Amino acid sequence: MTHTNKFVHSLFEFANGLADSARVLILNHLKKNKAKITVKPDQSLVSDLDYKVELHYREQISQRFPNHGIVGEEFQDRNPTSDWKWIIDPIDGTQELVNRSPFFGTIIALHYCGRPIVGIIDHPILNLRCSGAFQLGTYINNNRFRLKNTAPTNKAVVIPARADFRKHAEEDALFASITAQYDNHRIFRNCYGHTSTIMGSTSLTIEHDVRLWDIAASRVLVEEAGGKYAVLRCLELAQDNKVYSIAFGLPSVVDQVVKLLKPLYTKSKIV
Amino acid sequence: MTHTNKFVHSLFEFANGLADSARVLILNHLKKNKAKITVKPDQSLVSDLDYKVELHYREQISQRFPNHGIVGEEFQDRNPTSDWKWIIDPIDGTQELVNRSPFFGTIIALHYCGRPIVGIIDHPILNLRCSGAFQLGTYINNNRFRLKNTAPTNKAVVIPARADFRKHAEEDALFASITAQYDNHRIFRNCYGHTSTIMGSTSLTIEHDVRLWDIAASRVLVEEAGGKYAVLRCLELAQDNKVYSIAFGLPSVVDQVVKLLKPLYTKSKIV
Repeated sequence: MTHTNKFVHSLFEFANGLADSARVLILNHLKKNKAKITVKPDQSLVSDLDYKVELHYREQISQRFPNHGIVGEEFQDRNPTSDWKWIIDPIDGTQELVNRSPFFGTIIALHYCGRPIVGIIDHPILNLRCSGAFQLGTYINNNRFRLKNTAPTNKAVVIPARADFRKHAEEDALFASITAQYDNHRIFRNCYGHTSTIMGSTSLTIEHDVRLWDIAASRVLVEEAGGKYAVLRCLELAQDNKVYSIAFGLPSVVDQVVKLLKPLYTKSKIV
Repeated sequence: MTHTNKFVHSLFEFANGLADSARVLILNHLKKNKAKITVKPDQSLVSDLDYKVELHYREQISQRFPNHGIVGEEFQDRNPTSDWKWIIDPIDGTQELVNRSPFFGTIIALHYCGRPIVGIIDHPILNLRCSGAFQLGTYINNNRFRLKNTAPTNKAVVIPARADFRKHAEEDALFASITAQYDNHRIFRNCYGHTSTIMGSTSLTIEHDVRLWDIAASRVLVEEAGGKYAVLRCLELAQDNKVYSIAFGLPSVVDQVVKLLKPLYTKSKIV
């Protein structure tokens, strides 16, 4: 193991430890409580568990890496000028969580100067974890995993819901193009879709206008598994908020979808 | 317990026993084998496990109820004139099963003169079972369950994929109408979607042009949980094959979707 690898390995171990403790926290909370829900100004949901898990991450990270940055869905950025940034989504899929659907997950990513170094998507109820780190590979429940780049026959693709194409602009035409081209699709609207593509259950994931914490772990996870990741568009909204449209999965399928969608995204009228 | 209820109860217990043994069979098979896949003439997939589970059901049912009818996806009808019909889908979601996605399920239903008496959807990997029987209620993992008919705010609806609207006719306009009206949707393309609506994780399931065994358990499951079930269309294809378009879930949402879709289904050009 090189010196760099050893360092990445220690970060990876720390992140896996974070996910372990978050899983215990989440499962215990769900056993004892009904999640308390608030509707946020953008109409998305947040539960008391979202805050609890994000604070847990922030505490553990600041203790171990006091100079690292932290970007999370529910609280303000910490050390925003740091080269090292932990990007966390405490509960991705709050709508599933509050409706007792098991697909929600917790997402942890570490980026160095914008480059993803460590990524974890953990599904506590499903007992399913994708974890990966730069040059160390991708793991499904701690077993090394590599995508087979075989013909994606009979593998579905994961796409956004029509509502996602109406969040910041009316882009229903994009939804129509995507569903026409990839008519055997699945729609999850949460990180389980990413997991399914990273572990090869589906050939491709497309995300439309999502925030950094929704996708921060997925690039290193899919690339280290032998897949490909492409940015279709990055939109700058008000208050320095960016939203990303991306595609990742089996390399041949990603190449095809980029060819189809890049021109449509370029043409699409945006706010 | 009335005499009728006692009788239904014994049928319900038998069906739960069937699902128990099928679950063991499926989990053991998946531990030891990679499913062997065949592509059927209609381009859908079948695995050796589909045959194994259906034969298991057929054997157990014929032994206990030699005069009952059996309708299954993979083999010919047995005792087709019987008033009692077991309708089984050994593996619903073979595409998920072969791609190591945990949503596939096994479906068992018993109909008497076309009326659903017993229904079970079992997800072996998720350790999740919906079971129910006429006048005996619906159970999630053997706990009695009733839908709360509260406002379905922030509950998604489960809809078919665009590919489903292209199976027997070009009905993409129906997909467009459904996705425009219910833009916060999930697409599973297997019985997990039914489960999610029966247990209240989603407010509604719409199915388009599916076979009897795909939906045979769901009516009694949703009705006994306090939900509503509606047939939008029944199409008679060649060789006495029927396909059904249905909607079920929270009563108010079903009423609304029937109002929207019945006229569209009536207008839609079909083969």
